[in-house]
Amino acid sequence: MQVYLDNNATTMCDPQVVEAMQPFFSELYGNPSSLHKFGTATHPYLKKAIDQVYTALNASDDDDIIFTSCATESNNWVLKSVFNDLIVGGDKDHIITTEVEHPSVLSACRWLEEQGVKVTYLPVNDQGIVEPHTVKSFITDKTALVSVMWASNETGMIFPIKEIGEICKEKGVLFHSDGVQAVGKIPVDLQDVHVDFVSMSAHKFHGPKGIGALYIKNSQPLSPLLHGGEQMGHRRSGTLNVPYIVGMGKAIELATTNMEEKMASIRAKRDRLEDALLELSDTFVVGSRENRTPNTILISIRGVEGEGMLWDLNNAMIGASTGSACASEDLEANTVMLAIGADNELAHTGIRLSLSRFTTDEEIDYTIEQFKKAVARLRAISSSFAKVQPTPGGEAGECHIPHHMAH
Amino acid sequence: MQVYLDNNATTMCDPQVVEAMQPFFSELYGNPSSLHKFGTATHPYLKKAIDQVYTALNASDDDDIIFTSCATESNNWVLKSVFNDLIVGGDKDHIITTEVEHPSVLSACRWLEEQGVKVTYLPVNDQGIVEPHTVKSFITDKTALVSVMWASNETGMIFPIKEIGEICKEKGVLFHSDGVQAVGKIPVDLQDVHVDFVSMSAHKFHGPKGIGALYIKNSQPLSPLLHGGEQMGHRRSGTLNVPYIVGMGKAIELATTNMEEKMASIRAKRDRLEDALLELSDTFVVGSRENRTPNTILISIRGVEGEGMLWDLNNAMIGASTGSACASEDLEANTVMLAIGADNELAHTGIRLSLSRFTTDEEIDYTIEQFKKAVARLRAISSSFAKVQPTPGGEAGECHIPHHMAH
Repeated sequence: MQVYLDNNATTMCDPQVVEAMQPFFSELYGNPSSLHKFGTATHPYLKKAIDQVYTALNASDDDDIIFTSCATESNNWVLKSVFNDLIVGGDKDHIITTEVEHPSVLSACRWLEEQGVKVTYLPVNDQGIVEPHTVKSFITDKTALVSVMWASNETGMIFPIKEIGEICKEKGVLFHSDGVQAVGKIPVDLQDVHVDFVSMSAHKFHGPKGIGALYIKNSQPLSPLLHGGEQMGHRRSGTLNVPYIVGMGKAIELATTNMEEKMASIRAKRDRLEDALLELSDTFVVGSRENRTPNTILISIRGVEGEGMLWDLNNAMIGASTGSACASEDLEANTVMLAIGADNELAHTGIRLSLSRFTTDEEIDYTIEQFKKAVARLRAISSSFAKVQPTPGGEAGECHIPHHMAH
Repeated sequence: MQVYLDNNATTMCDPQVVEAMQPFFSELYGNPSSLHKFGTATHPYLKKAIDQVYTALNASDDDDIIFTSCATESNNWVLKSVFNDLIVGGDKDHIITTEVEHPSVLSACRWLEEQGVKVTYLPVNDQGIVEPHTVKSFITDKTALVSVMWASNETGMIFPIKEIGEICKEKGVLFHSDGVQAVGKIPVDLQDVHVDFVSMSAHKFHGPKGIGALYIKNSQPLSPLLHGGEQMGHRRSGTLNVPYIVGMGKAIELATTNMEEKMASIRAKRDRLEDALLELSDTFVVGSRENRTPNTILISIRGVEGEGMLWDLNNAMIGASTGSACASEDLEANTVMLAIGADNELAHTGIRLSLSRFTTDEEIDYTIEQFKKAVARLRAISSSFAKVQPTPGGEAGECHIPHHMAH
């Protein structure tokens, strides 16, 4: 058996998505910007895909949803164009984000700092989320943008986007949310929240890798990141990636149709897995289940290095991660766990398990069995676990960890 | 019969390319940045694709070839990062390009002008190309970058990249070439020419739309356009688009294997088509055949509006264009023809026919027949053609046109 539990890193393309894309490689291959039939033949399919995305997000006809090559592009676009439009080209000098954003936001912000922008990296609370009052307290007259993720890639924790949106609206500050881990996983209703810009990525909800989008409320101004041809009303140039746009439309439709039902099914499997793993002593899951995307567990196993666990799970053909794949080439401590207040040792013990609608009960059973086996093996050879091992009777979630790390 | 003669706008994905990409959607779907087997299983295929691109371009191991989402991204990356690195972050203030670049270069340059950069748009000669001495004459101590296309999307004319590269090297100025219409169409040997940066796009050589690359000589510094995760050595962040990278590798291999033979075959069909169309009176092709990509004809038909021709050809199921698809949503005069010196009326008569290795002799026969029929019909109803119609005996390429438009 092989079990893929790294769906926050990327997902399997849904076979229905692959099928939907097929005709656009070698049959309907025209450039949509061309005036002839080869080009215009693609238009109904593009229109359908765009409608699928608008419907899934409950976007308004007044809003723009612009396809990009990925959420990294969408995030860079917002940050750098707000910088150009309101800081270089205006009187603002400040951007607010959080300590726990995806590397594409954090790295772009560090670059903006080199350009002289003041960036505030907000701390998170013991649940790993930013509290609205914290955002409010840092907004000044010079703040150009607040950028706060919708849900954490590492923990699955859902941020108070509605409340932060209200604050930004009241203060007249632009609000961007990296929605990569929310779109397709939990309901995202863009009429219910006030967000100016939302980034998303198809490969996180069983669409292809290499396509994303940026939602722009009320089609408001934002200078392009990619200048060029007239595609997408000059907002994002480059020949339209027709197969992937069609695929993204299909993928978001599949992800959001009967979403409550899909979420409940994933949540049931996740909770069963989580309950079983928490039977192990000295294990801790970050963040409350209720406020987490239904597919995610970030679990810490005292005395077991995350990389050791990955190795054992990998040998059992289970794919998991210690955190963001975008930062996984180095073996570093989990940054979100550090931000929450874990010590360095504990932050090296995090294992992220992220399910999808394709995860089966049999896969959960197998994972529980293999996970427990791996923990037993690794703890037996762990020098650090011996030192911190609780007295007999010690319970999960109680011993030797910072209080706020307990789930 | 349907005939696709707009291969400079985009191409059909080669069925072998589509087949090569298939396993990477729903089978080998791991994120290459992940440490588990689902991720690492993609590595040999990525390595192969990268090798295919290096081999096709004769790039050195010391060079970087970084995958991007398209040539528009590659072009924006070079222009904006040279701006950031050498103009904002240095003492340069000047960029040189040409009047006939792709919109992604021209539009980015106009944006740079708004940021205070001095941009020189070099004129072209009667062949539609920039002469090396013209480039040389505009380089100053303040010049950060020269950006000249390798071959024209509109005319197919091949620019003197080797000579311009030598000048830039001698002057110590960075040299970028938009190689979109050269890579996969004509030999591009990056050991034979001195170019610092070359942009390319897979969908121009029967790869998928939505992937391109930037060649960076000697892996020299260039700040990223997309900051974020650690992909591609931090040079271009974003989850790797594994299917399309594999597809681009396969596509460039197919395009460049036995290239001379493929070029000769396309050239023979192109020349036969061109000869036949030039039998019509008052028709003119831009640029010498010898110095043109073997697949391209930009033909002007006195008295016939390009859009009228497109319409008639389209009704006959022949896909052609009046110029760049990236600028075709408006019905404008062909900018390259204007740059060469055509008057506005003539510049509205250009029709671009661009073949591919999939173009057949039967398609050429059919196109000749339909093209002549369309010209006869449109000239019969043309008021302007009546006025300029040559005396009997007038020959193609001679009458009522600026001398330098003659092929």
